[in-house]
Parts: sequence; structure tokens; C-alpha cells
Amino acid sequence: MKLEDILAARARIRRWIHKTPIMRSRQLEQLIGCELHFKCENLQKTGSFKARGVSNFLTSQTNKAAIYTTYSSGNHGQALAWGAREAGKHAIIFMPEDASPAKVAAVRGYGSQVVFAGLSSSDRFEACTAYAQKEGACVVPPYDNELIIAGQGTAMLEVLEEVPMFDAALLPVGGGGLLSGNAMVLAHQRSGSRVYACEPRLAADVQASLRSGTLQSIDYPATIADGLRNLSLGERNWAIVSRHVKEGLVCEEQTIRQVMALYGQFLKLMVEPSGAVSLACLWENRKRFAGARVIVYVSGGNIALPDYGKLVSQDELLTN
Amino acid sequence: MKLEDILAARARIRRWIHKTPIMRSRQLEQLIGCELHFKCENLQKTGSFKARGVSNFLTSQTNKAAIYTTYSSGNHGQALAWGAREAGKHAIIFMPEDASPAKVAAVRGYGSQVVFAGLSSSDRFEACTAYAQKEGACVVPPYDNELIIAGQGTAMLEVLEEVPMFDAALLPVGGGGLLSGNAMVLAHQRSGSRVYACEPRLAADVQASLRSGTLQSIDYPATIADGLRNLSLGERNWAIVSRHVKEGLVCEEQTIRQVMALYGQFLKLMVEPSGAVSLACLWENRKRFAGARVIVYVSGGNIALPDYGKLVSQDELLTN
Repeated sequence: MKLEDILAARARIRRWIHKTPIMRSRQLEQLIGCELHFKCENLQKTGSFKARGVSNFLTSQTNKAAIYTTYSSGNHGQALAWGAREAGKHAIIFMPEDASPAKVAAVRGYGSQVVFAGLSSSDRFEACTAYAQKEGACVVPPYDNELIIAGQGTAMLEVLEEVPMFDAALLPVGGGGLLSGNAMVLAHQRSGSRVYACEPRLAADVQASLRSGTLQSIDYPATIADGLRNLSLGERNWAIVSRHVKEGLVCEEQTIRQVMALYGQFLKLMVEPSGAVSLACLWENRKRFAGARVIVYVSGGNIALPDYGKLVSQDELLTN
Repeated sequence: MKLEDILAARARIRRWIHKTPIMRSRQLEQLIGCELHFKCENLQKTGSFKARGVSNFLTSQTNKAAIYTTYSSGNHGQALAWGAREAGKHAIIFMPEDASPAKVAAVRGYGSQVVFAGLSSSDRFEACTAYAQKEGACVVPPYDNELIIAGQGTAMLEVLEEVPMFDAALLPVGGGGLLSGNAMVLAHQRSGSRVYACEPRLAADVQASLRSGTLQSIDYPATIADGLRNLSLGERNWAIVSRHVKEGLVCEEQTIRQVMALYGQFLKLMVEPSGAVSLACLWENRKRFAGARVIVYVSGGNIALPDYGKLVSQDELLTN
């Protein structure tokens, strides 16, 4: 996989996706003590960066399938449902039996069919791949795929156009699609900027992998950051992350909730728990980043409103 | 007052304020049946369009005062507190004794002094003007002032750069600063686009004024849209609104709450009740606007998080 793949992705998906805004807040900068640039992928089509990878996958396929499918409880499934509709294709999304009604409704709202398959991620993975083999459908993997990685990496090309120089970029990491694609762009185009992988402490497999130098996995992580519950990075993702990511940072669950409230208060943005993890990690490590110019990725904003209302109302605000 | 005043305002305040994004949502367009362009002034500095008028006032003053003051329970006070700090001036904001702690904290957070003065708007108006006369401070009026009107009107100049042609613009109206400035721009630059004044039905003084042709006022309006509780338009505002605004639209309180939830769900934006009124009015009149290209102003996003959480969690979503 090469930088050229990401440059090609950008040209191909330009008319599919939003160039998302980079926002700033002087009040948050004073609170945290850094110069902050927020890359707002919660304002991306479908409410998360996942629309980038999916649209690159769908526009790159040479074997044009009639049916696309994936296994997802969250944003990747919504993105494929959206992308398939845009492409005039049919999509079937395998979801867990306990998927939130809001997420099921969102997938169906884009016109896709939902199939419920067990409760674990392996249940839906197996049901999806079995279906694809039988019906000749094309599986769109959530992160361990070069087209997906290249699509997610296009976000950093946009960042570099608006913020040419910075010290650090903080990105949330689950399976590693976003992190690996964006880290690859930086390694080639701004080797002086450091990339940090951000996770809940309850799901710190990437920090452990980077520290040990070998790919680590964890047991089912009970974090509220539902987009980052993967047990480990994908293989292709780890190959890039192990080379180009400086370090893993972690944060507490309580900080994630408080940072969601900060985004509401100061940026007027609804951010889902996974999307708040990079700023939460920055907050807990703010002394190390004092005075630095930092890119903070806000990866998504998909959360049911009653859950959001509860999460942001219950906490004291962060203060220095 | 002339269009040139608004053009001059734009040049003067350009480095003070954000050019706010215009957002779209295909899902909201399908739900409502129009082509929708949202002018997101909740993403403006200080969380509302009020930063425009205040910065135009402060940069236009020929008699440079040392102290600025105003009477406000809400966004205008925050904007003046912010603007005074930016200009290196002192500001004193007269607020009601029952002002929400979040709003008091926001004004103080920008470094201004808060003085509590009674409960009614006339209490704080009188206290503020008496103070200004005694101390030689400069009063910055919230809406009935040409510099304020010109500053607010700059939002429409930005709209016209991005959306050159449209059928209708829907704006919320309280005292009329935003409505009059923006209507004046459209009257001069796009006389084919119609401007609609949007209010809660509980505060429908502008609809009554436009229907009768004379300035009407109302008793204390118990709407949740706290930014639109003015008893009537200002005189300068009415002079412009009566000439250039086509019609007043109204909406129910329940629709305002439901529209706040729609903004969260589909645009990932936190919108305060007043900021949701224009889309709420469009929703209740959607048959008349079917197929039209409509500009919808989102005027602000300042609301305490616990209040927001409660307002958006309790309602059924709107469906066609």
C-alpha cells in the first residue's frame, strides 16, 4: 500500500463525501493549554469518517457486484447502507440481535436490509461471510482492507491543506482503519508531525501492541466508546501503525463523558463517545502537550439522543 | 440605513468573526420535502450571530469609550463580553437576578463584570442606562441600532456567495436585529427571494404587526425560545421589516423541541430553542414550501447541557 493509493482515493471520492470543517475554540485552547484544530468527521456524510472508506471501496471495485454486505453494529454498517444507495446497489448488513434500535433504524433509513445474527462479532462475521459465499455478494470489510484504509486516509490530506504544520495528531483507534490511513499520509508528507493512537484505558490493545512491538489483543472491553471495542487491530492496519505511530495514549470513561459535554458547550457539536476519545486522551496528558499545535480527530457523532442527553447532563465540567 | 453600511460592516469585522458554514442534510430534505441550506450561526464565535453586530459596533465607534455596557439575559451579553475583551475594553453586563448560572458563568468567563438588576427587562434597561450616564459608559443596544443591524446583516452576504439563488429565507425574530439586516441585503441583492419572519406562536408579535401593518407588541411570552421573548420589534427594525419581509410564520413549542432533536440527529449540531424556530416554522408550513430551495437560519446554540439533554430526549421524532 502506497501514498498514491490515498491520493487516488481522494480524487475518486471527492463528489461523494464532505470536505469536513476544521474547527477551533479559543476557550478550549485556554482550558487545555494547546493550539487545537478539530477535524470534524462527525459532520461527514452518515455522521462518521466511515463514509470515506466505503465510498473508496465502492468506486474502486473492478468486479462490479450486485450486492454488498458487511458485519457491523455501528458506523461502518450505516456508511455501507448509504454508499450502496448512492451507487444504486443493494446492501445487506449483518447486525447483532441486541443492536440499538436507533442504529437499526438508521441502516434501514438508507434503504438497506438488516439481518440479525447472534450477539458476538464472530457470530455476525461468520453469518455475513457464509451469506456472501452462497449468494456471490461482495463483503466490504470495516478496516483490514487497503481500499478502506486509503479512503479513511483522505481526511489527513484535507487537514494538511488547512493546517500545513503541526506538532501532533491525535486519532481514536478501534480496528485501525482511520489511524493507519492517516498515519501513512503524515509519514510521507510531514514526517516531523507525530501521530498518537487514542483509546479508552478499558480497550488499550494498541498501546500494549506499540509498547511490546507485537500485535496484542484484549478481552471484550466494556467501554462506552462503542466504536472502539475491537479486540485488536487488523493485520494490514498493524503493519502501518507499528511503523508510523509514535505512541498509544489512554483515557478514563469519566473523561470521555466530560469531553462529550465540552464539545457540546464550546463547539456546539454532538459527538459520540468514540469521537470524544482523542480529546479525552489529550486532556489526561495535557502537560506533555503544553503549547503544542495539535490536530484532534472527532471521528463521529452517531448516538441516540436519549443516551446523549443522559451522558452529557450528569457530569461536572472539566476545569483546570 | 443603506446596503453600503452592511458591506462596510463585512470588511470591518472579517477578522473578528467566523464565516460560518452552510450545512445540508439529504435526510432532512427528504423528511421535509424542500432543498435546505442551513446557515449555522450556532457555530459563530460566542455561539450566536450576536458576535457580528457587537463587533461591528465596537470597530465603528468613533468616540472610543473606555467602558461598554448592555442589558441582556442572553446571547447579546455574551457577545459584548467577548467583543470587549477582544478590543481590550472593559464591559459591564446588567442581567436579571434569575439569570441562568450557565449564562452568568459564560459572561464572566469572557472577563466581564455582571451586575444583577431586578427581574424584568425594564429593570435592567433602566439600571444599565443610569449607570452609563453616571459613568460615561457606552451602551451597546441589542437590536435597535444601525451598527448592530448592519453587523447582523453580514450573514446574508455570506449566504449569497455560497447559494446564489433561492426561493425563501426563514429567519427567527425577537427584537429584529438579525431579520432586518438580512432582509435589507436580500431586498437589494436578490429581490426575487422572499424573507419570512419565524416566531413561536406564543410570541407572535411580528406576525401580528405584518398582518395589521402597524407595530404590535405582546405580553410576556412564555416560550422556551428565550432569545425571542422581546415584547416587540425595535423601531428601526420595524421600519425595515415592514418593507422587506413578506410574512410571519409561527410554530408550536412542541415542534421547537422536536426540531432541536432533528438538528442533533441529522446535523450533529447543538441548537438552542430560539435557533430551532425557523426550521420549526418550515416544518409546520412544509406543504407551502414543497420543492422550494430554502435558506434556514440556525441563530444560536447556547443552552445549558442538562436543559438540552432534557429537551431532546423526551420527544418522539417528527415523521411525515
